[in-house]
Amino acid sequence: MARWAPGARERLQQAALDAFETYGFDATTVASIAAVAGVTERTFYRHFADKREVLFDPEHALETAFSRAAVAQDPDIGLRDLIRAVLRDVAVLCPEEARADARRRGAIIASDAGLQEREALKLQRITAALERAFQERGESARRAQLAAGLCVLAFRTGHAAWLAEGETRSLDGLCGTMLASATLVLAK
Amino acid sequence: MARWAPGARERLQQAALDAFETYGFDATTVASIAAVAGVTERTFYRHFADKREVLFDPEHALETAFSRAAVAQDPDIGLRDLIRAVLRDVAVLCPEEARADARRRGAIIASDAGLQEREALKLQRITAALERAFQERGESARRAQLAAGLCVLAFRTGHAAWLAEGETRSLDGLCGTMLASATLVLAK
Repeated sequence: MARWAPGARERLQQAALDAFETYGFDATTVASIAAVAGVTERTFYRHFADKREVLFDPEHALETAFSRAAVAQDPDIGLRDLIRAVLRDVAVLCPEEARADARRRGAIIASDAGLQEREALKLQRITAALERAFQERGESARRAQLAAGLCVLAFRTGHAAWLAEGETRSLDGLCGTMLASATLVLAK
Repeated sequence: MARWAPGARERLQQAALDAFETYGFDATTVASIAAVAGVTERTFYRHFADKREVLFDPEHALETAFSRAAVAQDPDIGLRDLIRAVLRDVAVLCPEEARADARRRGAIIASDAGLQEREALKLQRITAALERAFQERGESARRAQLAAGLCVLAFRTGHAAWLAEGETRSLDGLCGTMLASATLVLAK
């Protein structure tokens, strides 16, 4: 067993962002990421299943955050307020200081069809988990399915807006704006 | 070149549904599907890239139908009416006589994680195509993104309801119901 290297995970993530940006996602090898981070390939694979996973969340932290937020709210609030509260709780995971790296990550994902598929699947998992959480709160299958879909739609579009060059509003505010815009689209 | 067999494509699709139901998706081979349909494996691969593709639409007919429907509507209608009109045009592709086979297909997809991923990616492609079509109609990036997301959400949930055992309402009617329910969720 190699000696445990403090911060290896974060160093690997930064080295991967640098390498993907400089050489492109396809041309970057796990060996080169590990070398720049100053760890062995073996250490890389202790943290991530493969090259793609460095860009994603192997522990499903976001999925868990959505589900937890859904069950944590006041049992009496309406479905729209519940969606808004879940978005607020989850947005805490993406503070201002994380925006620069999130933009770099977003640009790399946008450059590769396989990474976009991985992102779509992650959102599908979140939607399914959220749907179960809403049902556990006593919502009907149909309302749980729609509420989960609307919540993830507001998050996805709000997060894309948050990454836009020059955007300074918070993720929470942008998700709220998207929810309001969706309401307007459906109301007319 | 093997002689062109009329109806080979449809026979392969039916043979695949039968085999997947009887032996499970994993245990079914392309060879056994081809044998039951009375064609060679070569003919199978002329129609479908692999075993999974028999269950999906290799020509992206649904994606094209969504985009065409979006650009075909009256240029002056509002976004909500536009979404409703697109759903109506696309629902024509799923008439009552297709429901029994769609149910069988849905049950097979629900049995396999890989097939569910393939379905999620298909919906992602449709969403992206629809977003482009809405932008071509002059909608802003944000409204096009939200409208595409709402339209696919109504379609996805309406289609799931259409497949439910004992359900007799049309796909078009169910998509309209889902759009109305989503409006209610957001209004409260």
